[in-house]
Amino acid sequence: MEKLQQTIESIVPPDGKVKEAALKRLADQARPNGSLGLLETVGARLAAIAGTLDVRLNNKIIVTCAGDHGVVSEGVSLFPQEVTPQMVENFVNQGASINVLAKHANARVKVADFGVNHDFAPDYPIFHKKIRKGTSNFTKEPAMTRQEAIAAIEGGIDIVESLVQERPVDLLGTGDMGIGNTTPSAAVIAAFSGMAPRDVTGRGTGIDDDMFANKVAVIEKGLNLHRPDPKDPVDVLAKVGGFEIGGLAGLVLGAAANRIPVVCDGFISTAGALIACELAPMAKEYLFAGHRSVETGHQYMHERLALAPLLDLQFRLGEGTGAALAFELLDASTRILAEIKTFEEVAIANVQ
Amino acid sequence: MEKLQQTIESIVPPDGKVKEAALKRLADQARPNGSLGLLETVGARLAAIAGTLDVRLNNKIIVTCAGDHGVVSEGVSLFPQEVTPQMVENFVNQGASINVLAKHANARVKVADFGVNHDFAPDYPIFHKKIRKGTSNFTKEPAMTRQEAIAAIEGGIDIVESLVQERPVDLLGTGDMGIGNTTPSAAVIAAFSGMAPRDVTGRGTGIDDDMFANKVAVIEKGLNLHRPDPKDPVDVLAKVGGFEIGGLAGLVLGAAANRIPVVCDGFISTAGALIACELAPMAKEYLFAGHRSVETGHQYMHERLALAPLLDLQFRLGEGTGAALAFELLDASTRILAEIKTFEEVAIANVQ
Repeated sequence: MEKLQQTIESIVPPDGKVKEAALKRLADQARPNGSLGLLETVGARLAAIAGTLDVRLNNKIIVTCAGDHGVVSEGVSLFPQEVTPQMVENFVNQGASINVLAKHANARVKVADFGVNHDFAPDYPIFHKKIRKGTSNFTKEPAMTRQEAIAAIEGGIDIVESLVQERPVDLLGTGDMGIGNTTPSAAVIAAFSGMAPRDVTGRGTGIDDDMFANKVAVIEKGLNLHRPDPKDPVDVLAKVGGFEIGGLAGLVLGAAANRIPVVCDGFISTAGALIACELAPMAKEYLFAGHRSVETGHQYMHERLALAPLLDLQFRLGEGTGAALAFELLDASTRILAEIKTFEEVAIANVQ
Repeated sequence: MEKLQQTIESIVPPDGKVKEAALKRLADQARPNGSLGLLETVGARLAAIAGTLDVRLNNKIIVTCAGDHGVVSEGVSLFPQEVTPQMVENFVNQGASINVLAKHANARVKVADFGVNHDFAPDYPIFHKKIRKGTSNFTKEPAMTRQEAIAAIEGGIDIVESLVQERPVDLLGTGDMGIGNTTPSAAVIAAFSGMAPRDVTGRGTGIDDDMFANKVAVIEKGLNLHRPDPKDPVDVLAKVGGFEIGGLAGLVLGAAANRIPVVCDGFISTAGALIACELAPMAKEYLFAGHRSVETGHQYMHERLALAPLLDLQFRLGEGTGAALAFELLDASTRILAEIKTFEEVAIANVQ
């Protein structure tokens, strides 16, 4: 808990003066005011975080957090739990979707095991942050203990710290892998918002009406049984969350504490980001929403986080894929800010 | 007219068998079916156009078409007409928004003068396709003659042909520059759709309520005076269009005839694309919508073209900026198709 508390307390706001200078430069550029929309806001925010108008996002990393979920025994997912470790292997072997999209965005992929139901060899090239081999089935008992929840979050913070020690990180993206993990994510949102599970639950990898009704019932059962306290984010994570969701929250806190902009991916990553920002509202200043997924409830989270997602391509994959694609838009926003000439620089008449 | 007719007749559909193979590969990849949303459709379409599952978009070009508009004397734009040639110069000097975003997308920018109210030296490094130094004021007379409209479209076709002669073009983007050109663009849409000008007219570079009311009245006046025939796209272009809008239509036709995928940018580029597809519906098969701008009426055009815009970043700039940004998503879609491994390739159990 000490590390978590220290990390939260060490988050400071980005540089407001640099943001002001960035917005001024954007307004002075030889084009109609505000004409590059969201990428102007994004560029100014990145400048404030970096403390300069010439932001360079060189060292870009996606951390994909994996974990398993006891609640899959309730039949909430199409895929069997064995797929989680198989996909971890696929990530490590560079054959998965996130590898392809990260390569395209000139980013590296790092994989972290927070609770996969599989023994990875100690020298397997991933972050070994396993809390336990899968959460407990939250329809019967809390997904994890409070101590485990804190350990998961602190594991995410640890990862950022070890990445930064290697060399400065310019941009972090979060991604997830965990069969069944849209179920705890929807439960987390329902817990914070008080919204009905039916209204924040989606179809995950593509379940039918019967499986959907069951998934909603499973979430309702967990929430009714444990009554997580929405004012206590660690309690929410412990009772109905997931180990990788805790890790994802830790990544956001660690990024904010280290003044690194962090892009959250889809439904699960955003659930992790939500926990982080409920713990430390200032972390929002470092957070960017990569995309809006087709998952019901994702939009609600973006509203609660006051974030405008950059892409809306009907993705429903996770792994960090939407974050990786958004990296290129963040890159573009930095070039817009630094490189488009002002009216004065090119001697063109501005609007009177 | 001969060139235009020949070009229209030479457009053939993309390869349906390759598209089928692409969709099969995408469905077999080790991820939930359809989970990469729009980029799956885009990747399959690009494969069908290229005739291969391993599409490489190496030679990428944005052609930004410039022209002036007699209708600006009616007070429809915030900026003075002198800005059109100044911006052409800014493009050539690599200082404008499109230069920055094209560079980011690893694309070249070519500029074409279709009717700028300025004499560019013959050796100025642009495509010299000037029809006349600005259209006529369509509240008083047709914007151009039928012959001029055809010449503008054929000028766009010429540009594609000369680019292709240099070396094969893998991806073309269209962009516009022309003070006042949202007014003829809105008039073109109103003419094709029969919708009220008020419902398809936007604020351009940011006009206030009074200027907006005037802009709508100007468009109504032009349409009432000339009654363009929506079944005759050349008539629509001639009566209420613009020279660069004709050029933009020609680029789309030329691209389709040369089996080059073409990304249209914002409101004006899409008005050009609309004219092209009204002339040759098959051209739609080669067309991609870069983004949805804030201009009212843009969404209507996308619906009429049955295109899903890839980005929605509240841009309202033109120049080709939204097309350039979308290039990176098209690139990503080709990598998704070619590089993500199938369940079989990575030996992971698929859904039963």
